[in-house]
Amino acid sequence: MTSWIRFQSPDGGIGFGVLDNDRITQYEGDMFGAVRATGIERNLNEVTLISPCAPSKVVALWNNFHALAAKLDKAPPSHPLFLIKPSMSVIGPREAIRRPATYGGKIAYEGELAIVVGRRCSEVTPEQAADYIFGYTCINDVTAVDLLSEDPNFAQWCRAKGFDTFSCIGPAVQTRLDWRAAHVVTTLDGVERQRYPLSDMIFSPEEQLSLLSQDMTLMPGDVIACGTSIGVGSIKDGATVSVSIEGIGTLSNTLEARG
Amino acid sequence: MTSWIRFQSPDGGIGFGVLDNDRITQYEGDMFGAVRATGIERNLNEVTLISPCAPSKVVALWNNFHALAAKLDKAPPSHPLFLIKPSMSVIGPREAIRRPATYGGKIAYEGELAIVVGRRCSEVTPEQAADYIFGYTCINDVTAVDLLSEDPNFAQWCRAKGFDTFSCIGPAVQTRLDWRAAHVVTTLDGVERQRYPLSDMIFSPEEQLSLLSQDMTLMPGDVIACGTSIGVGSIKDGATVSVSIEGIGTLSNTLEARG
Repeated sequence: MTSWIRFQSPDGGIGFGVLDNDRITQYEGDMFGAVRATGIERNLNEVTLISPCAPSKVVALWNNFHALAAKLDKAPPSHPLFLIKPSMSVIGPREAIRRPATYGGKIAYEGELAIVVGRRCSEVTPEQAADYIFGYTCINDVTAVDLLSEDPNFAQWCRAKGFDTFSCIGPAVQTRLDWRAAHVVTTLDGVERQRYPLSDMIFSPEEQLSLLSQDMTLMPGDVIACGTSIGVGSIKDGATVSVSIEGIGTLSNTLEARG
Repeated sequence: MTSWIRFQSPDGGIGFGVLDNDRITQYEGDMFGAVRATGIERNLNEVTLISPCAPSKVVALWNNFHALAAKLDKAPPSHPLFLIKPSMSVIGPREAIRRPATYGGKIAYEGELAIVVGRRCSEVTPEQAADYIFGYTCINDVTAVDLLSEDPNFAQWCRAKGFDTFSCIGPAVQTRLDWRAAHVVTTLDGVERQRYPLSDMIFSPEEQLSLLSQDMTLMPGDVIACGTSIGVGSIKDGATVSVSIEGIGTLSNTLEARG
């Protein structure tokens, strides 16, 4: 069980390594390929964490939890329902979520489990899928809710969820996670708003990776946001959302107050 | 007026340059930044063209032509309606469109103008937009039509249009195009199926770039597919679709016959 992070060091360089309590063992090379220990150790408080990977795309699922499907009175889908969020939407722990300059409406948090793809894959079976999953992290899949239904003819999923800073991921990628035993807990300014079991997922991580790899080639570092469950709500400007999953850690991001 | 292409040379290397009739003047460096002439000239028939750019994302518009909006009886949108196609969906001239292994349904062509972004941009005004447009190319925005409405609760735009090989672009990026005078002409096995004027666009290229740059940061080489108009139809396995725009050229791709 290894907890990979990326960070910016005081000299401005970007590094990555393994986190064990507050100690970082720094590596070099390709996090998803060959890595070598650098011999450098750092303390967590010496560095600034950044997103633990830099995905070429984020594939975000909708309607992947039985409890939310039941609440919305929607049938469970027969294939993962997804939209694509661009790489520029990704930020890391403690980076600010920015309200789009052109948007004054409701902005919602969605605390979720995220899968980090480890190897390029296409048309992988569910049995093979585990070999292609590098690990797991937390995601806050942020949404400019009012845009979703702004046009009566076209649900604007990519626009509402694709803004820069709207995919908060981190703090670490955990290579082993007993997701069936874990919960997603989301707090808003310290008040618990979501607590749901990952065992309630409609498509398991392995099924998601397998089925999505029928739809497109997934690349190392790509992120699959597994969908959220009940308890989604809106973030006031200046409020902080924290997403926690046992074994991964806590991801906190604040919606920047308007100037 | 410059026509940029990328190609694979007989030694397997990837190069880029300017096409003038059948002569390629090869350059090195960054097509969107500093380029230097290599002194190498090639004949078009010595090389294999590849996609003229390698976008980090393709932003594909829906409902951007008055004629199609009228036919579908949809109101013109107040903001570009779009979905995001992943970088792995991109292929170049004469590369095969591949039917997804899991999909036996209808596959449609959509001949369109594509904008190639030249500089990183965010929150650009319509007046500034021209400075951020590198040029224009053709796109065949391929769609697995039956998937769009497979789930009654979620229109699967990203899935239906995001498969590998479903964004055919090329043959060249033309830096100057009098798009107001140009038409998109799409043929299927040599029979004309679309011929529509680009002057019928709802959002002009400059408006698209400006408005989309409010929604996300666009990167050099990113592609905006400007939407299609009337005449969309399905491609039988083994059939060839050609998209032509005066001043750019003709992009031809065949839907691979099933083995």
